[in-house]
Amino acid sequence: MKKQPIGVFDSGLGGLTILDALRRELPREDLIYFGDTANVPYGSKSKVAVTKFSLAIGRFLQSQGVKLIVVACNTASAQALPQLRRQLSVPVMGVIEPGAEKAARTTRNGHIAVLGTEGTVKSGAYVKALLKRRPQARVFQQACPLFVPLVEENWTAKPAAELIAREYLAPVCQSGADTVILGCTHYPVLKPVLAKILGPQITLVDSASAVAEAVQRFLTRRGQAAAGGRGRVTVFASDDPARFKRLAASLLAEQIATVKLKKLDL
Amino acid sequence: MKKQPIGVFDSGLGGLTILDALRRELPREDLIYFGDTANVPYGSKSKVAVTKFSLAIGRFLQSQGVKLIVVACNTASAQALPQLRRQLSVPVMGVIEPGAEKAARTTRNGHIAVLGTEGTVKSGAYVKALLKRRPQARVFQQACPLFVPLVEENWTAKPAAELIAREYLAPVCQSGADTVILGCTHYPVLKPVLAKILGPQITLVDSASAVAEAVQRFLTRRGQAAAGGRGRVTVFASDDPARFKRLAASLLAEQIATVKLKKLDL
Repeated sequence: MKKQPIGVFDSGLGGLTILDALRRELPREDLIYFGDTANVPYGSKSKVAVTKFSLAIGRFLQSQGVKLIVVACNTASAQALPQLRRQLSVPVMGVIEPGAEKAARTTRNGHIAVLGTEGTVKSGAYVKALLKRRPQARVFQQACPLFVPLVEENWTAKPAAELIAREYLAPVCQSGADTVILGCTHYPVLKPVLAKILGPQITLVDSASAVAEAVQRFLTRRGQAAAGGRGRVTVFASDDPARFKRLAASLLAEQIATVKLKKLDL
Repeated sequence: MKKQPIGVFDSGLGGLTILDALRRELPREDLIYFGDTANVPYGSKSKVAVTKFSLAIGRFLQSQGVKLIVVACNTASAQALPQLRRQLSVPVMGVIEPGAEKAARTTRNGHIAVLGTEGTVKSGAYVKALLKRRPQARVFQQACPLFVPLVEENWTAKPAAELIAREYLAPVCQSGADTVILGCTHYPVLKPVLAKILGPQITLVDSASAVAEAVQRFLTRRGQAAAGGRGRVTVFASDDPARFKRLAASLLAEQIATVKLKKLDL
């Protein structure tokens, strides 16, 4: 069990921010990443569609012998987690609970804002997870549908990114929140722009390090953590692996050797 | 045959600009529109994926008894037209040939620029179609990957749209082109912004009216044009029909009564 890999999946490139954190925190683990580039983006699609994609990926990762699946996509975590847990035999961890946990510990005034895709915001998953931990919290949600295309196109340093972010963040600045959750695994790439607009008095919370810590606790508790040596990273994409590899370079500290094509059985 | 509907499809909302033109030019025809909202966008996906989506839609429209299929998506026209023609028994018309025809007639200095998705630009389909008509033409291509998300999010009137357009169009302005093809059915929605940036000396060519005229000629020649009465419009979307209907309102002159959900058999 210790030697089995951890499976990680996302709609596309964004989940690489989680892969990066896992690689840093758990360098001994073998990791299998699946980017569903044939179906990206998930954020504007229905719960039925997102669940179907997620289950197909979950089944594939399970067939690769993983010991744990990390859903490194907030939309899929918000919409498909119960189904994944019901239909797969390996444990499945989402990104919302660890992120909400961290934000609930971070806020001082109890006002928290959540940035996410349309699907994540509509699900209310962060609101539920936050109120479970801090029933008095005030939660403000803001959908930011253009952030994913900006990241997927590697345009985050362009002036357009800041202009778009200013539009989305205006109501967030007015909400009184002292803590802002980056509720989409693509958003950490936009951190410099977001931090500039929100200012130093607001804390940005992303779930990457929180998820990595949760994975570490989970494996240690079960006695399943890999021992010795440096783990390998294997990357699959459901469409255009060459494009994925090229764009991944801007999101990962480490270079990916090859990206394999794996079409989903939907 | 005269009473059979015309099938029209696109990756999402953009093809409604073609539907709108068909409705205006051929008000007697019954039209069936299919928006592949489960798989949008096509522009950043591989030829294999775009062909698979297009064939599944083509088979569905054929099962609805259409007399002609209009591929109202430049990426699908550029990448999947030969396969569609090979595998379907109804005639299939793309948007690239009519658009190239119009641009070749419009240009005065023989310099033409094409704006399109990554997929359309990579295919070189417009370059081929233009050089067939004007072998001496100079063709400049520019991929504009963020335009589709801007339109799909209904953000075309926001300042970010202009900023993004200025970035994409800078090399177009320097290319010496006097004619610019809007080589994606989403782009006509951005016409006011694009015209402002390019100035009055550059002519914008979109394929919507050119396609409608080509369809009219085709049906007349075959004696298949509908006679009398006002045709009906039926709309299908492969995901989240309610969202599709809401966003379609900004693209169509006419209101859509209902949008039906139809999942593709891939």
